[in-house]
Amino acid sequence: MSPDIPREALQLRSTVKAEGTVEVALVRVPIPRPRMDEVVVRIGACPINPSDLRILFAGADLSRARAGEVGELPSVSAPIAPEPLRLAAARVGQAMPVGNEGAGVVLAAGSGAQAQALLGKVVGVTGGEMYSEYRCAKVTQCEPLPPGTSPSQGAAWFVNPVTALCMVETMRREGHRALVHTAAASNLGQMLVRLCLAEGVPLVNVVRRPEQAVLLSGLGATHVCDSSQPGFRERLEEAIGETGATLAFDAVGGGPLASDILVAMEAAAARSQPGYRRYGTTVHKQVYLYGSLDPGPTVLHRAWGLAWGIGGWLVTNFLERLRVEDSARLRARAVAELTTTFASHFSGELSLTEMLRPEEIAVYARRATGAKYLVRPNRSPG
Amino acid sequence: MSPDIPREALQLRSTVKAEGTVEVALVRVPIPRPRMDEVVVRIGACPINPSDLRILFAGADLSRARAGEVGELPSVSAPIAPEPLRLAAARVGQAMPVGNEGAGVVLAAGSGAQAQALLGKVVGVTGGEMYSEYRCAKVTQCEPLPPGTSPSQGAAWFVNPVTALCMVETMRREGHRALVHTAAASNLGQMLVRLCLAEGVPLVNVVRRPEQAVLLSGLGATHVCDSSQPGFRERLEEAIGETGATLAFDAVGGGPLASDILVAMEAAAARSQPGYRRYGTTVHKQVYLYGSLDPGPTVLHRAWGLAWGIGGWLVTNFLERLRVEDSARLRARAVAELTTTFASHFSGELSLTEMLRPEEIAVYARRATGAKYLVRPNRSPG
Repeated sequence: MSPDIPREALQLRSTVKAEGTVEVALVRVPIPRPRMDEVVVRIGACPINPSDLRILFAGADLSRARAGEVGELPSVSAPIAPEPLRLAAARVGQAMPVGNEGAGVVLAAGSGAQAQALLGKVVGVTGGEMYSEYRCAKVTQCEPLPPGTSPSQGAAWFVNPVTALCMVETMRREGHRALVHTAAASNLGQMLVRLCLAEGVPLVNVVRRPEQAVLLSGLGATHVCDSSQPGFRERLEEAIGETGATLAFDAVGGGPLASDILVAMEAAAARSQPGYRRYGTTVHKQVYLYGSLDPGPTVLHRAWGLAWGIGGWLVTNFLERLRVEDSARLRARAVAELTTTFASHFSGELSLTEMLRPEEIAVYARRATGAKYLVRPNRSPG
Repeated sequence: MSPDIPREALQLRSTVKAEGTVEVALVRVPIPRPRMDEVVVRIGACPINPSDLRILFAGADLSRARAGEVGELPSVSAPIAPEPLRLAAARVGQAMPVGNEGAGVVLAAGSGAQAQALLGKVVGVTGGEMYSEYRCAKVTQCEPLPPGTSPSQGAAWFVNPVTALCMVETMRREGHRALVHTAAASNLGQMLVRLCLAEGVPLVNVVRRPEQAVLLSGLGATHVCDSSQPGFRERLEEAIGETGATLAFDAVGGGPLASDILVAMEAAAARSQPGYRRYGTTVHKQVYLYGSLDPGPTVLHRAWGLAWGIGGWLVTNFLERLRVEDSARLRARAVAELTTTFASHFSGELSLTEMLRPEEIAVYARRATGAKYLVRPNRSPG
């Protein structure tokens, strides 16, 4: 293997303990020699996505996080309440690696032609275990980034960009012609605004604060509905009527928002199918819940007839149903537009050691819209 | 036209008034001369289904029903509270005919061969407006009943039998192999028990009272879970695990029942996909709400990963998506097994005039499971 690669390197692991705590710790792991279709990537940067935070902290009470040490390496622990502990039962005792995506330089490659072709290149990587100094990955988990793209620019190449692309793909495959998106000021939401503008897809953005509405309008968003404002439901119905949106992607999950969206969609549909219909219109209205910013129950008032659906939506499940060439096309587009359509904005950077400091956790784990952090696994602790 | 057919006949009409009442009245309507592809049926019997009650009374407070008269014919009125009145806004002022299905003798037929072929036969009819002495119907709305079948035996030929058949059809088309059914002691539920036994489809029946469990076990049902009993959720999970059911048809709608079913399905699926999965299993779990016995909100706790869906389900919308020969096959089977698989039980019979009496309404509009009434439009008032 390349002389630049050590035999062991640091990696972050998260362990839920039966007594009701989560312990996140640095561990030393051996770096495997890459097999024929594998490469070893020195990870330059990874984002901290909400999905990573769930694995990292398992719903623990982070206001009570305490720094510690495991085997002379830094760690942090926090208590988990009974309900999140119950949901994490199947992972108790497992030291789970974390980090869904990242980017870095390929320092070693297996003997296969595809692996060799990546040597020395900056690649995006997906497949978990990215909060590591080095990651041995299959060629199929890597996507070469355009020349000149830095690992920081490429770190968030997969989760948000491919999700945005798959939302539009879902819309087309299921026969809808416009979209509603909630929590629309997120990094993902901003990408979706740009993507829908480029694709000519009408998009209704639902946000929760006036400054978020301003942000999206600044990106060129036409329809922005702020749920904190009076008349929100009327504006939503108007925007849905104007766009003809019959599909929504909702990141909020809990509460009445999905219900509000379906009511607005049915009201818009009823204008195209006038008169009394005992079972509502025959226009199919669909909401996919892809996040859970509000972990409370989803409350459905069912005042929208019988042509409707709600369901979970997960980008990886969707990708698995695509043909290989279709998912390859989406991934290639994601990296091709990393500095334009799919540019991410980060509020700060952390080393692996800094990720374990309670005062940093208090900031980066807040999941505030627009405040996203970058991990630099090979940066020395600040 | 046949000398047996009068120029006018009685029909029931329901009108929601803007001031907040519903008025159900007998009216005299002309009987049209049948066109080429039409027949005139003397309606012998029709069931009163929950869907008919919704149109008849529009959610009015029937404890305050008052008998009256419109144009020397009997009527009944009852007040409607603001919320159901709002839902009925699009039908205010329309005198709506009622009655989804029925059966009777064809007394006149248009010149077309298919119409002529029905002359003198007992047919099942669908398409609304059945609470009428005579109904002019298209040939495609009629299904000849097997020789010897009476209108009373054939009255409920469509709504419940075809719904049961379409539930099994939906299961097969969407790749499931077993079913959960709630409110399972209903007439429809009993048909579904017999149909699933005949088809070898494993069925989990959810009922709300011990005597309903006894009834279904008596029909040969293997899995019956009584939600009024302690340990209901455990029994449900066990039954779902044994059957492998990943599709449910829920007639209750409101409350946590759909949530309970999805939790049980995910628990069963997790046994086949062991280990921690951050987004739950990849087994798709589906609940269709086809009724609304509990009109309150559906409450979803979302503790079942991301591979799931809930949606409205309506037999007529489903039939419209079938090929003509497939829906013809289902209808033919429904009438072929009217006295076996799809036999209905009725608690009593009413004339059109009796349907307007407050003391009868108090009984037949209760929607108690197992208490279903038959209308005999041509019977003289009792």
